Amino acid sequence: MAAVSDRRGGPAVLRAEIIAVGSEMLTPTRVDTNSLFITEQLNEVGVELWAKAVVGDDRDDLRAVFARALERSDLVVVTGGLGPTQDDITRDVVAEVLGLPLEEDEEAAERIRQRFAARGLRMPEINRRQALVPRGAVALANQKGTAPGLWIEHDGRRIALLPGPPREMKPLFERVAREYLAPVARGARLYRRVLKITGRTESHVEEIAHPVYSRWLEGPNRISTTILAVPGQIELHLTTRASDAAGAGAVLARATGELAAALGADLFSTDGGTMEQVVGDLLRERHLWIALAESCTGGLATSRLTDVPGSSEYVERSVVCYSNRAKTDLLGVPASLIVEHGAVSEPVGLAMATGIRERADVDIGVGITGIAGPTGGSDRKPVGTVVIAMAWRGGSRVRTMWFPGGREQVKFFASQAALDMVRRWLIGPDA
Amino acid sequence: MAAVSDRRGGPAVLRAEIIAVGSEMLTPTRVDTNSLFITEQLNEVGVELWAKAVVGDDRDDLRAVFARALERSDLVVVTGGLGPTQDDITRDVVAEVLGLPLEEDEEAAERIRQRFAARGLRMPEINRRQALVPRGAVALANQKGTAPGLWIEHDGRRIALLPGPPREMKPLFERVAREYLAPVARGARLYRRVLKITGRTESHVEEIAHPVYSRWLEGPNRISTTILAVPGQIELHLTTRASDAAGAGAVLARATGELAAALGADLFSTDGGTMEQVVGDLLRERHLWIALAESCTGGLATSRLTDVPGSSEYVERSVVCYSNRAKTDLLGVPASLIVEHGAVSEPVGLAMATGIRERADVDIGVGITGIAGPTGGSDRKPVGTVVIAMAWRGGSRVRTMWFPGGREQVKFFASQAALDMVRRWLIGPDA
Repeated sequence: MAAVSDRRGGPAVLRAEIIAVGSEMLTPTRVDTNSLFITEQLNEVGVELWAKAVVGDDRDDLRAVFARALERSDLVVVTGGLGPTQDDITRDVVAEVLGLPLEEDEEAAERIRQRFAARGLRMPEINRRQALVPRGAVALANQKGTAPGLWIEHDGRRIALLPGPPREMKPLFERVAREYLAPVARGARLYRRVLKITGRTESHVEEIAHPVYSRWLEGPNRISTTILAVPGQIELHLTTRASDAAGAGAVLARATGELAAALGADLFSTDGGTMEQVVGDLLRERHLWIALAESCTGGLATSRLTDVPGSSEYVERSVVCYSNRAKTDLLGVPASLIVEHGAVSEPVGLAMATGIRERADVDIGVGITGIAGPTGGSDRKPVGTVVIAMAWRGGSRVRTMWFPGGREQVKFFASQAALDMVRRWLIGPDA
Repeated sequence: MAAVSDRRGGPAVLRAEIIAVGSEMLTPTRVDTNSLFITEQLNEVGVELWAKAVVGDDRDDLRAVFARALERSDLVVVTGGLGPTQDDITRDVVAEVLGLPLEEDEEAAERIRQRFAARGLRMPEINRRQALVPRGAVALANQKGTAPGLWIEHDGRRIALLPGPPREMKPLFERVAREYLAPVARGARLYRRVLKITGRTESHVEEIAHPVYSRWLEGPNRISTTILAVPGQIELHLTTRASDAAGAGAVLARATGELAAALGADLFSTDGGTMEQVVGDLLRERHLWIALAESCTGGLATSRLTDVPGSSEYVERSVVCYSNRAKTDLLGVPASLIVEHGAVSEPVGLAMATGIRERADVDIGVGITGIAGPTGGSDRKPVGTVVIAMAWRGGSRVRTMWFPGGREQVKFFASQAALDMVRRWLIGPDA
């Protein structure tokens, strides 16, 4: 159900529309995801979306879509089409629809020149276009690319133009939300908390969580809950709207506590953190070092762990032992063990975990071996079969699991299960 | 760049817009994916999308979005909002905008009754609404749910209404495409080819490619080109419309050949393949084995290589030597070399590449060492500095590069540059 705008007093409620510009998003393979980040930021400052649109790199089409957005929106956010090429039409079309001339912004031009100079390059002439701004617009310095963002207030409408690449768009829109939108919302905003659960299906989580969250649907401090299945985990998003951060925080904290009691150790994050962050935090707190021996995951588990800043404080090394020879050379897995049980077996997984732990001389060793597919499966060990093992001083643990999906999905599930095994061991022997 | 519609003869070209109805798709977590399937089906019968939109379950909002779609589209496909509840407004709003009365379709009502009866249930009164159709509309039997699809031809416009759940939507839209759209297209469809380039900026690619592709914009075999910057590569999407697959293939092959001549070795894929697929194909063809020593990339380069089915035929092993001790233990990098030059240096990168190649006894060894950040940088070696090296029997190559962005992005760029170094060596010594 759509949220109802409150125009009867209280903080102003802006009606926002997002337009993503780019012909590639009108093909069968690309979807606009910038709008998800923008929506989150808008919700943070109490602004709700009433519609979004995607349009190709075509002047007439963008003109029509932008003009019709202005008719029903107080705020229009446009992403993409700010590059230096012929294709990049957003700047021109927006200026034309608003009836504003384009003028070169000296500062913006200088920043673009400097960006090229820093890499020892001369600015190509076509990049000059990126310094053009509609008269009266504010050019927002882009630290990650050449196209500045633009903020325009015109004729009772607010318009933000942002470059398409997410790493350029995100910091620019964060600034727009903070400097230009938060003051309008005067404190009212949506507060959201993301809980993440592993080891259970969506229906199981729903069964456990529904009796808890259904109690919060009414009343002044009501919380709306969305349950969402994403690969490797189930997410519960709790949202409440308030103008008081402390109050909203307390309401969400109480709700989180009730859900945590119901969900137990399957709940791995209550602040939206990733599995690799959660495991990294636990390792760092306990001053433990880890090393991994990966076969079917091909380095993915280690790559995820090392996505976390500071992970060099607890990741010592890993080996990707894709061949049987590498398992023997690098981990000391006896060739006879592989012959007897197969490379995908609990004895081999355990030997990998023990071997990497001992050779790296660390606290925790992890072994992952499986069949990622699409070939290599058998009746007894179908594609998707994965053995996850861990070893510590004085003990070890091993589990054989089966994961659905294609090669990349099996790799991801296997890395998630391995990190989760480590997490459960770290939070308590029975978790 | 958007494709130009041809209204001057040949098969009719329909301009299509897709509208997804549902407030959940205006939150930060859900994205409309039905439109990808629909776009694919539309392209198959030569219909192109000029825009798409998402709107919440709100009458006024849907009315505005649907009315504006009718202004510029020959075909409007609406998904969602056909359920039995108050929230489900699509049927009513579309009938209202078109000025058509809603009438009960006897057959549709009977099918809904039977669907409930088959499960031993009486049809709830609210489901009766699902049998209402705008006068003149065709109700399309839904085998997977209660809401029929609707096909409407009215006032020169074609409109398809489809239920939101993908498993109901897909077979219904396949029928729409086959029965109502293919005859209009008379065999014409879109053919697409994706070229990928590395080692150049978007502007540089545009400078080189524009003189080539601008020659194809007119004439009977015209090709439209979209240029797209995604992390680590620039993509050129070539699209042509034809009723003859062999002819379209020849046109695209000739265009690809001209671009390949202009772009040289920077063009790494002419069929949409990923860098890891291209490198994997080259290794397999040449019967070569590879092993990697990764530091700052944390296993990502190997994980990408092993995303490709069959990669166990050329990936022998990798080590992630996050600590200096691991570099010495696993690769034989002299501790003194690390002390003298630093872990991020060309001598250490080369020693890693040579060390892994010799120890794994493979044809190609790769070494990657760098500063992924956010900490660890210095004036001389700022965050983003990465050394990429490779070694083969009889030679080696090393390069120091700098990449912008956060930790995950530096990791990705570094893995891309390392794979690209291998690719260039494989296709020829000077590439």
